[in-house]
Amino acid sequence: MNGIQNIVLIGAGNVATHLGRAFKQAGIKIDQVYSRTENSAHHLSHELDTNYTCNISQLQQKTDLYIVAISDDAIPEIVKNMPLGKVPVVHTSGSVDMNVLSENNREYGVFYPLQTFSQNRFVQFQRVPICVEAGTGDFLKRLKSLGSAISNDVKEVDSEQRKAIHLAAVFACNFTNFMYAIAEEIANDSGFDFDILRPLILETAEKVLVNKPHDVQTGPARRNDLAILEKHQHLLETYPGFLEVYKILSELIQKKHL
Amino acid sequence: MNGIQNIVLIGAGNVATHLGRAFKQAGIKIDQVYSRTENSAHHLSHELDTNYTCNISQLQQKTDLYIVAISDDAIPEIVKNMPLGKVPVVHTSGSVDMNVLSENNREYGVFYPLQTFSQNRFVQFQRVPICVEAGTGDFLKRLKSLGSAISNDVKEVDSEQRKAIHLAAVFACNFTNFMYAIAEEIANDSGFDFDILRPLILETAEKVLVNKPHDVQTGPARRNDLAILEKHQHLLETYPGFLEVYKILSELIQKKHL
Repeated sequence: MNGIQNIVLIGAGNVATHLGRAFKQAGIKIDQVYSRTENSAHHLSHELDTNYTCNISQLQQKTDLYIVAISDDAIPEIVKNMPLGKVPVVHTSGSVDMNVLSENNREYGVFYPLQTFSQNRFVQFQRVPICVEAGTGDFLKRLKSLGSAISNDVKEVDSEQRKAIHLAAVFACNFTNFMYAIAEEIANDSGFDFDILRPLILETAEKVLVNKPHDVQTGPARRNDLAILEKHQHLLETYPGFLEVYKILSELIQKKHL
Repeated sequence: MNGIQNIVLIGAGNVATHLGRAFKQAGIKIDQVYSRTENSAHHLSHELDTNYTCNISQLQQKTDLYIVAISDDAIPEIVKNMPLGKVPVVHTSGSVDMNVLSENNREYGVFYPLQTFSQNRFVQFQRVPICVEAGTGDFLKRLKSLGSAISNDVKEVDSEQRKAIHLAAVFACNFTNFMYAIAEEIANDSGFDFDILRPLILETAEKVLVNKPHDVQTGPARRNDLAILEKHQHLLETYPGFLEVYKILSELIQKKHL
């Protein structure tokens, strides 16, 4: 069986855009872009130097792979409406079971890039872990090879593991960003720009690139500094939500470092 | 009044060590290191090419500044036992009021570097915000000038503001690191090394170096994706503490982005 050289992107959001760019750069041809939103479809297909459709039944059938990179809850509907045929299909979701793709008589799998993608930010795909899963060993091999074209870190990950990794990513990324947002609000309210916290944020992240987080935990809860913990809770009285966060996180840190 | 050219470091922990290195590199002479732990005092004074004492009453009196870089709760005791004299004194704490230093008849202030310091990590001091406060305008000027010798970001910050900044830093640094630790535990339990999350963590931090956190919040709570939120809470059933964190953070994110 030959490798995957041509793909169709189903979706034109952040994941589809960043994947499309990385594939194009790696010499994988994007045969077509689908989006239900004409503007997005047009925009991404133009960037990737290909054509587009907004009609899922008109997906090109001469291609090596359909990559479904759309929101989780839209996946079943799209899969139901894809044209019948033999083109294999993967989705890119962290949380959706692979078997949602198993209905039609075609090969299926998952191609999940573990990264946060934003408009207007360049992503070095070489460093992005790609979690692959497939219905057959042969298709898995081809997905691994496709992943290797854009990343140095392709891993076989089953659906249960992938869901756990996605959950971990919510803490490592989404909740982390919310910690930044809380810090921003407190800083702003005391007359400072978020700027003042940026060097600290970068150092905190860079520190765990070479250490285990547990080993480099610092702060009043880690030191069990009850006087500061109390002062901080007093300062947070006007922020009831943040106070609750402060209490539970401090308590958990104290327990972990007894 | 002349600038500060010579200092005595009171303390030999992470803050004292990193400050000492930065001052030495900037051509400020470290006249002496004090620590109650002889091993620490010896080690740091050796690195900084100076002498040390473990007896607080034997602090050198011919110097421009005492810098008290020790744990918060130890500050009052140290200040009480410092030799009488005219050497001005600052502490480096985010949370301790400046007035704790006002007892003796000498100039006093605060020199608070807003960064997380660890053994074995190099810190680029130029980018570290330094929050200064002083009992007199003249001393403030000299502290600002001292700060400028090692950092491009010296700010006048009063005690109330400094406490708020320190609280913000607990979220931006300590609690962020704990989010990493939670993610690590979940990843490990599903058979993965923390490595898989590192590119995501770095990108999440780098994103807010050029954006406001609120503007780049992503994830299931941000999208109000109730199906995933429910799945994740189900996965967290065996981690009651993390489940509680998940619930409250998701709820707060949902509220902020209604």
